[in-house]
Amino acid sequence: MTESCDGECASCGKAETCTDSRRQDYEQKKLLDKQKALLKVRMGQIKHKIAIISGKGGVGKSTVTANLAVALAQHGYRVGVLDADIYGPCIPKMLGMRGEQLTAGPPGAFPAVGPLGIRVVSMDFLLSDDDTPVIWRGPLVTGAIRQFLSEFNWGQLDFLLIDLPPGTGDAPLSVMQLIPEMDGALIVTIPSEISQIVVKKAVTFARQLRIPVIGIVENMSGFICPKCGFQVDIFRSGGGLAISGDMSVPFLGTIPLDPAVCDASDDGVSFAMKEPTSLAAKAFAAIVAKIEEFISSKGSEVTPQEG
Amino acid sequence: MTESCDGECASCGKAETCTDSRRQDYEQKKLLDKQKALLKVRMGQIKHKIAIISGKGGVGKSTVTANLAVALAQHGYRVGVLDADIYGPCIPKMLGMRGEQLTAGPPGAFPAVGPLGIRVVSMDFLLSDDDTPVIWRGPLVTGAIRQFLSEFNWGQLDFLLIDLPPGTGDAPLSVMQLIPEMDGALIVTIPSEISQIVVKKAVTFARQLRIPVIGIVENMSGFICPKCGFQVDIFRSGGGLAISGDMSVPFLGTIPLDPAVCDASDDGVSFAMKEPTSLAAKAFAAIVAKIEEFISSKGSEVTPQEG
Repeated sequence: MTESCDGECASCGKAETCTDSRRQDYEQKKLLDKQKALLKVRMGQIKHKIAIISGKGGVGKSTVTANLAVALAQHGYRVGVLDADIYGPCIPKMLGMRGEQLTAGPPGAFPAVGPLGIRVVSMDFLLSDDDTPVIWRGPLVTGAIRQFLSEFNWGQLDFLLIDLPPGTGDAPLSVMQLIPEMDGALIVTIPSEISQIVVKKAVTFARQLRIPVIGIVENMSGFICPKCGFQVDIFRSGGGLAISGDMSVPFLGTIPLDPAVCDASDDGVSFAMKEPTSLAAKAFAAIVAKIEEFISSKGSEVTPQEG
Repeated sequence: MTESCDGECASCGKAETCTDSRRQDYEQKKLLDKQKALLKVRMGQIKHKIAIISGKGGVGKSTVTANLAVALAQHGYRVGVLDADIYGPCIPKMLGMRGEQLTAGPPGAFPAVGPLGIRVVSMDFLLSDDDTPVIWRGPLVTGAIRQFLSEFNWGQLDFLLIDLPPGTGDAPLSVMQLIPEMDGALIVTIPSEISQIVVKKAVTFARQLRIPVIGIVENMSGFICPKCGFQVDIFRSGGGLAISGDMSVPFLGTIPLDPAVCDASDDGVSFAMKEPTSLAAKAFAAIVAKIEEFISSKGSEVTPQEG
């Protein structure tokens, strides 16, 4: 049955000649326009947006994002995290927030609030159990990310960190196009050559979309045997520095391969909070300093909020 | 300008009333029909098709695929590998085949031929350099995979292994829909709980698409210090067994976290060929035995070819 479009519909102008498919197109356009307007408002309240990308999976993007969020919050910043990995969302588990519910009210939905007040939106909060996969093609992924950014009340934030899934497809592309004012991208790699090949593509991806590359972090770098102290480069070494040199991007530091980092993630405690004196925690603090420096160099304000 | 559709076009039937957009739809449909027919022919020449999936990135799907291909070829099977990771193709690097060219002739294109005669098709062969990203949304990815499967002369093969990218989106979905006769899926995980959450989704994904799950392989399991022999479970332990128990899928074995595996991958030599007496190589041989058993249990022929 054809419903009236109240004479607003650009495709016909008259309710009586409107078809179902035209009506759907019109509704779709109206929704997109509404989301676009909302997106502008929401993003306008967030001072800095940083994407964490790698191109390759399993290099620790989510670990870096979660720990960086905590390190920034410890510095007094108001921080939000968008877990844009729709198929394999890990941020809630890493911040000890699994099982939280996203709430909704008249002004829109609200992010879940984690440690140190970090606001988090993740597909994980919307799935009934661990086993449920999200079997979606690209357009649905794009739609979900658009909703996460526009229909959630992120509120006033200093930083929004966006944890992107592997690859250079729908999700990363949509995030970059939805937030053209992105301050920059943080690239994460592991030391191996295999990883370098894929991660270099992420640097080019950011450049082609005109997103400044803040720098590169080498994760899982060098393992020290807890018994004898012998250092083993399980995934080789120097991959981050090699990309930094080859592609002229700043090198932000290395995060050692430490079983305690995996333990902390599995236990839902940020490593930066659990072991503040560890090499890994110091590496995150150093990355925060580099981000502050990067943002200052753009002439933006980066003062943490009081209280 | 409107071209003639030779009266074949179902949408109009007459060249003079044909529009450009109808003509394009018609051409598109004709191409799809041709690819569909070719796909049936190509896949009909391959006895067994196995997808390697994980849901999560960086757990070693490509390492498992490359080594399994070598282990199967060592058993006398004729093996092909489709690297379906369009954004981060790693198979050519792991099999020492980077820089190879895909050739084309009147009967279609030909896969590159690697160690032990393994036939490989990968996006990597089509990219001009390491840095070039493939910035494609889902439909282009699906189109590339369809072409790789239908327009390449895979020839007579005993096994086609398909290395799927992380996630449960366009690429895995397309592969499963293009090859409905898929023999089964091999699931790869690492021991961590974080990985389990994501990998369980892959098991459900395979089940929802009615692909039998051959079993689960736990990669990067237990690290033994090369100096003092102390075993450290860097990514914890037991993740594979836990998923196997929780979801009632066979457990196929563990592959230890060994720097030599990463070295071999980076050097483009299959670990199973380089260190045939290592624990990891034995693990791959055991997985081959389980695959043979799985296929026999389906009543199919699994005799390796002579010569």
